[in-house]
Amino acid sequence: MTRSRAFLNLAVMLAAGVAAVPAWAAPGDPGRDKVVAAIHANHDATVERLRDWIKLPTIANMNINHREGAEYMRKLALDAGFQQARVVDSGGVPGVFATLDAGAKQTVAVYFMYDVKHYEPSEWTSPPLEGRIVDRPGEGKVMIGRGAVNQKGPETAFLAALHAFKAAGVKLPVNLVLVAEGEEEIGSPNFHNVVTQPDVRAALEKSVGVFIPSPNQAIDGNVSLLLGAKGVIEVQLVSSGEKWGRGPNKDIHSSLKANVDSPVWHLIKALNTLVAEDGQTPAIDGWFENVKPLTARQKELIAADVAASNEADDMKSLGIKHWYKNEDYLTASYRLASQPTVNIEGLVSGYTGPGGKTVLPGKAEAKLDLRLVPDMTKEEAVSKLKAHLAKRGFGDIEVIVSGGYSPTQTNENSALIKAEQATLAAAKIPMTMSARSAGSWPGVVFTGPPLNMAAGQFGAGRGGGAHAPDEWLLIDSTNPKTAGFDDQAVLYADFLYEVARAGR
Amino acid sequence: MTRSRAFLNLAVMLAAGVAAVPAWAAPGDPGRDKVVAAIHANHDATVERLRDWIKLPTIANMNINHREGAEYMRKLALDAGFQQARVVDSGGVPGVFATLDAGAKQTVAVYFMYDVKHYEPSEWTSPPLEGRIVDRPGEGKVMIGRGAVNQKGPETAFLAALHAFKAAGVKLPVNLVLVAEGEEEIGSPNFHNVVTQPDVRAALEKSVGVFIPSPNQAIDGNVSLLLGAKGVIEVQLVSSGEKWGRGPNKDIHSSLKANVDSPVWHLIKALNTLVAEDGQTPAIDGWFENVKPLTARQKELIAADVAASNEADDMKSLGIKHWYKNEDYLTASYRLASQPTVNIEGLVSGYTGPGGKTVLPGKAEAKLDLRLVPDMTKEEAVSKLKAHLAKRGFGDIEVIVSGGYSPTQTNENSALIKAEQATLAAAKIPMTMSARSAGSWPGVVFTGPPLNMAAGQFGAGRGGGAHAPDEWLLIDSTNPKTAGFDDQAVLYADFLYEVARAGR
Repeated sequence: MTRSRAFLNLAVMLAAGVAAVPAWAAPGDPGRDKVVAAIHANHDATVERLRDWIKLPTIANMNINHREGAEYMRKLALDAGFQQARVVDSGGVPGVFATLDAGAKQTVAVYFMYDVKHYEPSEWTSPPLEGRIVDRPGEGKVMIGRGAVNQKGPETAFLAALHAFKAAGVKLPVNLVLVAEGEEEIGSPNFHNVVTQPDVRAALEKSVGVFIPSPNQAIDGNVSLLLGAKGVIEVQLVSSGEKWGRGPNKDIHSSLKANVDSPVWHLIKALNTLVAEDGQTPAIDGWFENVKPLTARQKELIAADVAASNEADDMKSLGIKHWYKNEDYLTASYRLASQPTVNIEGLVSGYTGPGGKTVLPGKAEAKLDLRLVPDMTKEEAVSKLKAHLAKRGFGDIEVIVSGGYSPTQTNENSALIKAEQATLAAAKIPMTMSARSAGSWPGVVFTGPPLNMAAGQFGAGRGGGAHAPDEWLLIDSTNPKTAGFDDQAVLYADFLYEVARAGR
Repeated sequence: MTRSRAFLNLAVMLAAGVAAVPAWAAPGDPGRDKVVAAIHANHDATVERLRDWIKLPTIANMNINHREGAEYMRKLALDAGFQQARVVDSGGVPGVFATLDAGAKQTVAVYFMYDVKHYEPSEWTSPPLEGRIVDRPGEGKVMIGRGAVNQKGPETAFLAALHAFKAAGVKLPVNLVLVAEGEEEIGSPNFHNVVTQPDVRAALEKSVGVFIPSPNQAIDGNVSLLLGAKGVIEVQLVSSGEKWGRGPNKDIHSSLKANVDSPVWHLIKALNTLVAEDGQTPAIDGWFENVKPLTARQKELIAADVAASNEADDMKSLGIKHWYKNEDYLTASYRLASQPTVNIEGLVSGYTGPGGKTVLPGKAEAKLDLRLVPDMTKEEAVSKLKAHLAKRGFGDIEVIVSGGYSPTQTNENSALIKAEQATLAAAKIPMTMSARSAGSWPGVVFTGPPLNMAAGQFGAGRGGGAHAPDEWLLIDSTNPKTAGFDDQAVLYADFLYEVARAGR
């Protein structure tokens, strides 16, 4: 569910006023020049590597390329220089665990997802599995393909850095741990089974932190550093005559409504209890019990972000005219970061075609996602939702949890975040910090117990269309402020030097 | 919307105990023997006429064969002996008006629908437009095809009676008026424009009543006579960010829910006000203002029907275990006939595929049908629904009325119903009377102002699958209690004699 960071992150410009043009200047690290030269020399091979990877989509909930995707991921790791890589049984789509011991003092972990969201080829202007390079006005040459930005593209940029160290004969300044999963798009339901395997856990615990390669760069060159993200549970609420024991167990003629109960109305009445009359404020029993208010520092980060942002642009991109309750931009931004939500993603029942059809449906489904903030947990949310429904006579409504995880938060003073900041500062890339994304990523697998590691998303470059048609990643930038594919890789190389330095 | 009468009609066995085997004996009318013989002689031609008609489906809301269907209907009337027939512009799909002046004292009108419900060929075991004859265990030979029972089959049986009079050289005992429409399946939105054309209205006003041919015979031979039917409005309620001016005007990422209003929740909150907490009782302002309680006679008819029916079978066919509020069968049957309803036919919003997808939809739609009882009217219902929503802050929700009509009721002592009863009694066919169908048919076009005529559905024979795959009509019955195609036609011939007699 890593996606659409441009508007999801609440970020603050930390380096406002620094040179807008990135200077990919060598920080003076041993061998760094040779590595950068190798990245450029390998450009075509890197593009081809991404294209080949895109050809093999792994889609968790469609049972597509589970084992094949894991094996491919394993091979990608070995090719990039990892000394050992193995496919790890997760109970679901397999994970991958790999290590690269450079004999260095510091170890950093990287998290990859090798699965992608499903796609509808007819909606694409370029075939989703071909990885064609096309011009994107204002950006440069981009690759179109499912996974281009979410997340094979940035992951390939990171691998390109490793290939360059290998090609240049330069020793890696840090040891690496790679953990990968093939179920990110369905909420990482089994990934904890991968990271808690004894050897995986031991390797992760040696690391200063874990990051997922992400091209978090805005069109003005700014890179956002994510300090936290809301948790989420995705649930389908299903009301049926069969489970309810009232109403029909199939669709019947609508005229019977007078003396037959309706599973659809049963669902509507249940849904109605989940939020207040404003259609917004969660009203599930005990929902706010563990909600922590924003800290002064988080509010400071959000306020700085708001000051540097454009409300009108933000509203325009969302297609809205007002924030909830007509709140001002700052209040609405505090709310976005701090409040749990109960969202309806979809409704489906009975006849769904054009016009009407006289049926009384035997079944109705609401698809919900509920965003969680610290210190709510996934387990707490699921059990409170079920208890709330049961208490009101809706205990028959099935609560199918299709994914989710607890919120994640990382200290901005951790060695991982400090190394990220130092890397961007050295490259003179403007930088912001996001107090908490309203979107979600499974960082809690790392930041929560038992690992309690620092975890973040990191990278330069641009892309878009995650989960949408024509997903793209910037390959050759025509905008001097934004990083092309090679520069994305160079930044990862520099980051590894910074991690090594941070530990000294 | 004429359909599934088996369980929609609340009928009372009037002739319980009469001979279960129909005796298609001549009531002694002039020329009747020759007419019956001609019906049998024409059997194959009649079957072929139905098959040919089925080949030309008119589907109102899919813009299929509007003009062609009307022209075909006109030709069918002329072929059957109507002296004049013309296509009548209705403002929508055209109507047809035809007259047959036999120089008789009495005139009766017949209402045809020439449109059919759409169909999905892949769901049929026999092609929906081929009219194949197949064996149906327990019934006999049946024709499979779209329109077989709803309503081309029974209409063709009536035409077969007219062809037989013509072939036998026997003068019709009554004059005939035919009015036909091609929009019954979408709620007859323009049919009033046909019947109120001066010449059509004048012809109808000379008639003792109007009936639609309907094979309303149960497997035990019983024929149900319909005295009334609920009205209905079909509406789609559409909530959108665009119309609301709040929330997004498109689907956006679900994480934005915290500070963006949701058109889906807006719809849920609106729906919630339409029925009481029981998910059943309409709660629209003023909804019961014009609801008339059942008369003592109607309750008597319903009670007799309940006494002759099997609750367990009824529940089984509906797939239910309890009536609303666990009411007993009689109370539930009173309720079915007497109470207006607010039914949800379908819900559709956002993501509707398997599992979930993290969107905040910009639009949500609920498809409703609201059944009306005397003296509610369609116009009243639409305006009260809109006023109710507007008063509660839901005035932005679009109320798209896709069809409907007011309730219909005909006096059981009218000449039309008396003639129907006499026809069945003479044929020794057991008979019931339905006080009010919970389903709906556009009888109010005739029973309401300005025509205020008697109107009903009439016929023997069996069929099923209206609006469903494998729609069928009984052609050759292996059950001595039920009428095959020829016997259906004979009953219509006898009915014309009875109408003539009723007026003497």
